[in-house]
Amino acid sequence: MKKANKNILREALLATFIVACTISLSAQEAPWMRNQVVSPELHPDNRVTFKIFSPGSEQITISGNWMEGWGASEALVKNDTGLWTLTVGPLEPEIYTYSFSSNGIRFLDPANTLVMRDGRRHESMILVPGEASSLYAVQNVPHGTLSKIWYDSPTLELKRRMYVYTPPGYESGSAKYPVFYLLHGGGGDEDAWSTLGRTCQIMDNLIALGKAKPMIVVMTNGNPGDAAAPGEAPPKKAEDPMGGIAGMGSGVFEKSLVNDVIPFIDSHYRTLPQRASRAVGGLSMGGMQTMNLAFDYTGNFDYFGVMSMGLTDPDPSGRSWFQDVDTRIRNLDSKGYKLYWIGCGTDDFLYEAAGNLVAKMKENNLKFTYRESSGGHTWANWRIYLSEFAPLLF
Amino acid sequence: MKKANKNILREALLATFIVACTISLSAQEAPWMRNQVVSPELHPDNRVTFKIFSPGSEQITISGNWMEGWGASEALVKNDTGLWTLTVGPLEPEIYTYSFSSNGIRFLDPANTLVMRDGRRHESMILVPGEASSLYAVQNVPHGTLSKIWYDSPTLELKRRMYVYTPPGYESGSAKYPVFYLLHGGGGDEDAWSTLGRTCQIMDNLIALGKAKPMIVVMTNGNPGDAAAPGEAPPKKAEDPMGGIAGMGSGVFEKSLVNDVIPFIDSHYRTLPQRASRAVGGLSMGGMQTMNLAFDYTGNFDYFGVMSMGLTDPDPSGRSWFQDVDTRIRNLDSKGYKLYWIGCGTDDFLYEAAGNLVAKMKENNLKFTYRESSGGHTWANWRIYLSEFAPLLF
Repeated sequence: MKKANKNILREALLATFIVACTISLSAQEAPWMRNQVVSPELHPDNRVTFKIFSPGSEQITISGNWMEGWGASEALVKNDTGLWTLTVGPLEPEIYTYSFSSNGIRFLDPANTLVMRDGRRHESMILVPGEASSLYAVQNVPHGTLSKIWYDSPTLELKRRMYVYTPPGYESGSAKYPVFYLLHGGGGDEDAWSTLGRTCQIMDNLIALGKAKPMIVVMTNGNPGDAAAPGEAPPKKAEDPMGGIAGMGSGVFEKSLVNDVIPFIDSHYRTLPQRASRAVGGLSMGGMQTMNLAFDYTGNFDYFGVMSMGLTDPDPSGRSWFQDVDTRIRNLDSKGYKLYWIGCGTDDFLYEAAGNLVAKMKENNLKFTYRESSGGHTWANWRIYLSEFAPLLF
Repeated sequence: MKKANKNILREALLATFIVACTISLSAQEAPWMRNQVVSPELHPDNRVTFKIFSPGSEQITISGNWMEGWGASEALVKNDTGLWTLTVGPLEPEIYTYSFSSNGIRFLDPANTLVMRDGRRHESMILVPGEASSLYAVQNVPHGTLSKIWYDSPTLELKRRMYVYTPPGYESGSAKYPVFYLLHGGGGDEDAWSTLGRTCQIMDNLIALGKAKPMIVVMTNGNPGDAAAPGEAPPKKAEDPMGGIAGMGSGVFEKSLVNDVIPFIDSHYRTLPQRASRAVGGLSMGGMQTMNLAFDYTGNFDYFGVMSMGLTDPDPSGRSWFQDVDTRIRNLDSKGYKLYWIGCGTDDFLYEAAGNLVAKMKENNLKFTYRESSGGHTWANWRIYLSEFAPLLF
C-alpha cells in the first residue's frame, strides 16, 4: 500500500482538524463524527456529560465512583443518531473513575484519553476541579522527578522495581532530604501511589504551598513475591506462592524494606539517613506493613501513617493480633517516635479494626493522632490522608 | 457498611485464590467464573486463545495488529455458557495490541492487565516470546532507570516533561555517558517510546548483550505547543494553535531541543557534552525533526536516525523540500558527521519519501546507511529500527 507522499501533509492537516474539533456534537451528528465525540464534557458548574456513539447498542450504562453503593450504575439515553448521553452532578471536586457497560461487558470511554489502572482493572478518569481537588491537579508549580528504579533485594532474592519521587530542585542542588516510604494496598503494586494516589501532584503542590517540607518519597512493591507490576518483571519460572498479595501476612516485605530498600536509598540518594528524617505510611495492606514496621522494626522511623487499617483478629498471617500486640506495641514505646497517625473512614470495612488500634494505643499510653473521615476504603480517602499526613512530617 | 474485621483474612484468602486460579476454563464454566477467564492464553507453539465471558452479546470480534489489512477483524465463537473464544496463530514473536468489538463499541480484554496507549487509543497487549521479541521482554539483566523529569523551555515558553533513561550503573558510578535523543511521531507524546517503543527493555538488553554502549536516552515531547502528555500538564487557558501535532512543520521543537533540552541534560546528567557523543533519531514526525536537526542544526550531533520518514513535497510546513534541500543537505556535509541512518518499510506510506531522501543523499555524495524492512508505518518496525540503530552509536 504505497500512497503518494503528499499524504503526509493531508494526514497532518486532518489530524490537526480532528484535534481542533473539540466541540460538542450538535444537530449535525452523523456516524462519521463518532471520532469527534467529546466525553466526558465538564460543565462550568461541575456537572459532567458522558457520551458514546453506538447506534447498534440496546442499552448502555455507566458506573462511576461518585455513585452510592457497590456496583451502582445509571443508564445513558440514546438519541436518533445513535449518540448515548448522560449528564450527572454537579460533582464534588475530586478524581473519579468510571466505565461504561453494555451486555455485561465493561469498557472504557473511547473519547477519554485518561485511564487509570487499579490492580487488574482499567477505568476512565476525570478530575473535577475545585478547591478540594486542587492538590491533585498538575499546577503551574515546580515539579519533582519520578524515577522507576531497580534495586537488589537479597532478602526476597529478587531484583525489584520501585518509584522514587525527588522534590523540585533535587537534581540541580546538593541538599540532603528526609525520606517518606509510602506503601500500597492489597491487589496494588508499585504503580498505585503515583497514579491513583497522585503522589507527585500532591507533593509538588504541598511543597509549592509551603505546606510540606521537600522530601524524597519512595514507593515500593509491597507484594514480596513480585519483582514488579504486571508486565514489568522478568517471567517467573513457576507461580510464586508469595506472588500478588499472598505474601501479605509473611512479614518478609517489611524485613526487605529495612534491610534492602533503606540502605539502597541512603546510598543512591542524598538523604538524611537517620530515623528523625524517615517516615513510613501505607494504606490497607500497606497500613498493616506500617504497623509491623512500627512495632517490630523500631528505631528505623520516627513517623508512621496507618491508613484504613488497624488490628484485626486474626491478622492476615493467621495469628491473633491480640495475643502479642501489647508486647509489640510497647516495643514501639520503648524506642520513642514522633508521630503515629491513624486515618480511617467511617464506612471502611476496617473501621472497627482501626478502632481496635486506637484503643490499644490508648490502653498502652502511646501518643497518636486519629483522623476519622467519611467514606470508605477508597483512593479518595487515601489521597486526602496523604495530603494531610505529608505536611506533618519532618 | 461495617463488616466484621475478620473479613480482611477472608478477602486475602479469596484474592489469593483468584490469583492462583490461572487455569483454563473447563467444562465447569459458570457465570461466577467470569473473573477467572484467562485471556490471552499463550500456547507453547505461540498460538494464542482470546476469551471473554458475555452471555448477552450477539457478536464479538477481535481486531489485532497481527491481522493483514486496515480494520481487519475476526469473530469469536460463543459456547453455551456464554464464553466467547478464538484461537489465532501461531504468531511470530512480537508485541501485539488488540481490542474486542461488539455493536461497534471497541473495548479492552477485561482479563488482560497489560494495556498500551497509542495516542488517544488504549489497546490490550501481548508479547509473544521468541528470539525476535527477546529484546522487548523484561529479562534478568541489569536494568536502567527511567525518570520523568520537568525542564524549562524558554524557546517554547513552557515547563515541559520528558523521560530520561539512564543505563544500569549510572546512579552508583561516576562515568560520563553519551546521549541519544529519541523522538516520537505525530499523534504521540513523550510516553510513546518508553511504552510502545520498549526503549528501556531494548536498551537494557542490548547493553547486557554488549551490543550497545551504555548511554543516556532522552525522550522528549515533540509537539511544541504541549507541556506534556494528556492529563500530565497544567490546564491551558485556551486551545494552543501549536498543540498536538499542529506545530509539526514549525521547526520550533527542533530549536527548543538544541537550545533548551541539550543544555539541561548536559548540566543535570553526567554526559559527554560533545557532538561525537550525541545522537538523534525519530520516527515519522520525529524523523522529520531529525532531518531538520541534521540539516539546520549541524554541529550538534554526529549520529542521525531517520525512521519511516523522508522528503515529502510539500513538507508539513507547506514549503517544498525540493526547493532548498540541496542547500540544506550540503549544510550537513560541510560539518561532517559519523552516521546518517535511514530506515523504512516497503509498505510504509512514506516509502517513496524515504526513497527521495536516499536519492538526495546519493546525489550530494553524502554517506548514509539505508535499511529497508518489510511492513509499514508501525511500532513493530520502529522497535526493530531502535534495536538496530542503537548498536551503531558512539
